[in-house]
Amino acid sequence: MQILYDRIRKDGIVRAGNVLKVDRFLNHQMDIHLFQEIGKEFKRRFEGEEINKILTIEASGIGIACIVAEYFDVPVVFAKKTKTKNIAGEVYTTKVESFTHGTVYDIIVSKEFLGKGDKVLVIDDFLAKGKALDGLTTLIQDSGAELVGAGIVIEKGFQDGGKRIRDKGIRVESLAIVDSMNAETGEIVFRNEDK
Amino acid sequence: MQILYDRIRKDGIVRAGNVLKVDRFLNHQMDIHLFQEIGKEFKRRFEGEEINKILTIEASGIGIACIVAEYFDVPVVFAKKTKTKNIAGEVYTTKVESFTHGTVYDIIVSKEFLGKGDKVLVIDDFLAKGKALDGLTTLIQDSGAELVGAGIVIEKGFQDGGKRIRDKGIRVESLAIVDSMNAETGEIVFRNEDK
Repeated sequence: MQILYDRIRKDGIVRAGNVLKVDRFLNHQMDIHLFQEIGKEFKRRFEGEEINKILTIEASGIGIACIVAEYFDVPVVFAKKTKTKNIAGEVYTTKVESFTHGTVYDIIVSKEFLGKGDKVLVIDDFLAKGKALDGLTTLIQDSGAELVGAGIVIEKGFQDGGKRIRDKGIRVESLAIVDSMNAETGEIVFRNEDK
Repeated sequence: MQILYDRIRKDGIVRAGNVLKVDRFLNHQMDIHLFQEIGKEFKRRFEGEEINKILTIEASGIGIACIVAEYFDVPVVFAKKTKTKNIAGEVYTTKVESFTHGTVYDIIVSKEFLGKGDKVLVIDDFLAKGKALDGLTTLIQDSGAELVGAGIVIEKGFQDGGKRIRDKGIRVESLAIVDSMNAETGEIVFRNEDK
């Protein structure tokens, strides 16, 4: 998605340790016009698929998911991150490892909002090692819902999450796949970009 | 806002301890159509005001803020909750007390995304004791931005936050003000509802 490549190059900041900061437009300040273009593009890519729910994870996925949901005309459910004890029976829950923060947290979704008959599109801002997406996939499987696919804004293609999850047969559509980036020069190489 | 009153009565759950659960449509599962009506209503109420940014707080404010932002045609910034040490100088930060969770947390906004010249509408899902709104107000004041007002979906009118903050001269528009609710009967009384 060329406007996303352009925006990442213009406003993204590459830092040492394979960090790509996009908080000017994606996950701290949020450019709603860009989110609308993202929504249209996911709708185009998943055209013809039956989708009746979008699932995301707090916090930075929520805004994108809500705008995308307008194009699919479906409700959004977000998985909550929690460290509190959960009441057995009321929620689906699994553990997610965060490499960014070096922690493990639980994510939960109320059983009321995910289950048989749901055809789910997962939306998230980033895919790197894929642990959040693994967690959401687990919740969907546990609930008996159907995972139609995942729509990701930025995939770090040099990490293994995307390949590993696609190899499981899960459809992953990433609007920008970063194959490499250079913290010294700021250069970013996107997969399959027309030059 | 009658459709909101109706929806709260239909899908809200009143629990002991003045708890109003609205996670079927507002803050776990999110009804995007309702959010669009909320966006239109805030736009109507703040018509004529110059607003160039929406500020909210993670997590459940983000989705509402993003849909509302489409009607104001402005970007959204969300304050992050954090327990990590902040790098002095890069962020505005203040402490917020959570009565729901019995904790105190820091909220931060990058200095890059809030400052002089910003005319800010705060959007949040709930107003009860008003501690989150106090925190956001502090960040706005510290940044030199101008607070135009706050748009709240549900205000607990039997708690003191709304009155206390309005008494400071801050404009607070709440789409549903709950004056009382009864956990045994489920009855909810809204302020100024036409019967």
